[in-house]
Amino acid sequence: MIDSDRLLNNLHALREFGRRGNGVVRRCLDDADMAARDWLVERMREAGLDAGIDGVANVIGVSPNPGPALLLGSHSDTQPTGGWLDGALGVIYGIEVAQALLANPATRELAVDVASWADEESHYLGLMGSRSFCGQLEECEIDNARNDEGRPLRDALAELGLADRPPFRLDEERYRGYLEAHIEQGPWLEQAGLRIGVVTSIVGMRDLTIRVHGQQNHAGTTPMGLRRDAAQALFEFNARINEAFARIGGEHSVWTLGQLRVEPFARSIVPGFAEANLQFRDPDQARVDAMSDCVLDLAAEFNRVSDTRLEISLFDDTANAVTMDDRLQLALADAAETRVPGSWQSMPSGAAHDAQVLATRIPSGMLFIPSIGGISHDFAEDSRAADIVLGCEVLADAVVAILSDSGQPA
Amino acid sequence: MIDSDRLLNNLHALREFGRRGNGVVRRCLDDADMAARDWLVERMREAGLDAGIDGVANVIGVSPNPGPALLLGSHSDTQPTGGWLDGALGVIYGIEVAQALLANPATRELAVDVASWADEESHYLGLMGSRSFCGQLEECEIDNARNDEGRPLRDALAELGLADRPPFRLDEERYRGYLEAHIEQGPWLEQAGLRIGVVTSIVGMRDLTIRVHGQQNHAGTTPMGLRRDAAQALFEFNARINEAFARIGGEHSVWTLGQLRVEPFARSIVPGFAEANLQFRDPDQARVDAMSDCVLDLAAEFNRVSDTRLEISLFDDTANAVTMDDRLQLALADAAETRVPGSWQSMPSGAAHDAQVLATRIPSGMLFIPSIGGISHDFAEDSRAADIVLGCEVLADAVVAILSDSGQPA
Repeated sequence: MIDSDRLLNNLHALREFGRRGNGVVRRCLDDADMAARDWLVERMREAGLDAGIDGVANVIGVSPNPGPALLLGSHSDTQPTGGWLDGALGVIYGIEVAQALLANPATRELAVDVASWADEESHYLGLMGSRSFCGQLEECEIDNARNDEGRPLRDALAELGLADRPPFRLDEERYRGYLEAHIEQGPWLEQAGLRIGVVTSIVGMRDLTIRVHGQQNHAGTTPMGLRRDAAQALFEFNARINEAFARIGGEHSVWTLGQLRVEPFARSIVPGFAEANLQFRDPDQARVDAMSDCVLDLAAEFNRVSDTRLEISLFDDTANAVTMDDRLQLALADAAETRVPGSWQSMPSGAAHDAQVLATRIPSGMLFIPSIGGISHDFAEDSRAADIVLGCEVLADAVVAILSDSGQPA
Repeated sequence: MIDSDRLLNNLHALREFGRRGNGVVRRCLDDADMAARDWLVERMREAGLDAGIDGVANVIGVSPNPGPALLLGSHSDTQPTGGWLDGALGVIYGIEVAQALLANPATRELAVDVASWADEESHYLGLMGSRSFCGQLEECEIDNARNDEGRPLRDALAELGLADRPPFRLDEERYRGYLEAHIEQGPWLEQAGLRIGVVTSIVGMRDLTIRVHGQQNHAGTTPMGLRRDAAQALFEFNARINEAFARIGGEHSVWTLGQLRVEPFARSIVPGFAEANLQFRDPDQARVDAMSDCVLDLAAEFNRVSDTRLEISLFDDTANAVTMDDRLQLALADAAETRVPGSWQSMPSGAAHDAQVLATRIPSGMLFIPSIGGISHDFAEDSRAADIVLGCEVLADAVVAILSDSGQPA
């Protein structure tokens, strides 16, 4: 049903915006990102959609057909050292499915809308576009958001001429649901020799900032026993977290200390301050909450015995675990089983996705294709072309099945 | 003999160059540092010395008297967040002793020269001034040196009009020795209730860079068991160093991980690279060497079992332990015992000092005064005024004793 050459060509064309070797650097609202959004508008129009960019840089293409519709999408912005498929895959799948269905007499009455959500990757404000679309973004959040270089989001939007555009808003009446396809970004499918993942839930996530206050001092003259070394205290706290999380965590629990800095950052000075970011995730929201409590307990215990002072604060980029819609899961599973019998599985998503926002408003589902080596958020990210094509075929089949069902909305 | 008001006034006047609250930021060759050097030239001339600035920004004032002379000095540059006494104390002591002796009929024939060495604190090139003076600085080192912002040392010297000035060079025939007074920068004197430290040796130091190569990956989708997290590997290696150094280290061994960074420094990405600086010191050179060997052994062992790859490289800022001259130690000890009987001690210096360079060419000695709370390399660094004055009196007494001795050079 779909045109696999057009699909792959469009993915490779999008890759050229911000390309760095095999990877892509397309941070939300930068030059490459905005050029890609303009290009996506053109592709959506070619596909037969009424497309535009809204006040937070969401690109949305609306089918000429009346509902019930499905909304397909993902994001086209990337991490600082991003891969070419992360997000881009789901956006181009959406355009391909919409275009293929409109061009086919058997399906041309079906309504498929497509979105590329702005700033899924938190350059300014994580999941900004989907949250705006779902009415879950406060104006004050936009006021306060800045990128890594300190540039205010408001300034960036104004300079791009977006400040006065109204945001696109979700019309719940129109949609049977939202479907997002994505690379797995993990190793499970590849290791199991499977080709499609049907997502059951998206993990809950907490992001904590750990700050340690010690005493800056001379690294040559301060005896080991009299030091209040903030960096060593942080390393010790990290070891306690590792020990505790290994004990209370589940099969899918993950935790990461991805940012760490010490002050004054001098070879001859005992660090007086250290700061790190601890992020942890689990498909079970109760476990995420238990891990949060555990960190706070460990910190209180640490402060009782340490001569450094440790502070924990909640970073704003947190999300509760959400469950994907059963009937959308079933439609994706049926389509996968038909295309590749026995070569798919149900699985949680370890990564955050715009679907977790949409899922709070309308039935939502996700489909994964395998990531080579499980690598993502890295220039080396890749997937096999055969898997890329298969994923789009499964998605298109499921879309047709859902929209052809004359019963109640899924 | 000395003028305590003039001493304290000069110390406070020097503090104004680059002052930040209680502290000072006077990195070698910056505006505040150069203004301070011009001011020091004027003070030296007022003291009766023939003073100037050489091609690497050393300030040296030469007595009109023939030798045998003593050279007194330290450095007036500071750390990025420096204290007001570190280095400055020994320079102003030198000027005060020279001025007081020249003004006193009983001592006006004695020859005291004074130096403020350039870049003791390694803004461009550690111990640059004293190494240049002692003929231990290669031209290619100057060619290659850059400051933290990447500015070449050659450019800075040229812009300041210093590039064509010849360096001052040590005339070994002139000197009975070199004496450097300094704040202790550690807690030992204060904790023992003592007021003067006579330095026996300056610790040897090694500075190693540790680099860990892992695999950057998505922090939500990469299972804990499949991660090659460079940051966690570095934390584990740090723990092994702590365990090993606690075992093989001595009473005065210290080690510090003062710089640490992870890449790509993103909350949602498993770090693929981590780098840290490990510095360690001991008064016993054999133990410094054993600690070096220990780190290399631990790294080899680590690489045999880890799926990350750890590299150790030697940073250039290393120094072997050196012993202070016995007769200069004795003169300082006699002077201290006379001024404050029983309230002084012999002790090693945990910090590096220009004296370790001078000691390779001429007899050298050092005197310490207590640091409040043992704090140094921090804006909070301070010493009691009574200790500041006492230290200068002891130094002046020792200088007179050494230069009045008609016997062989010490």
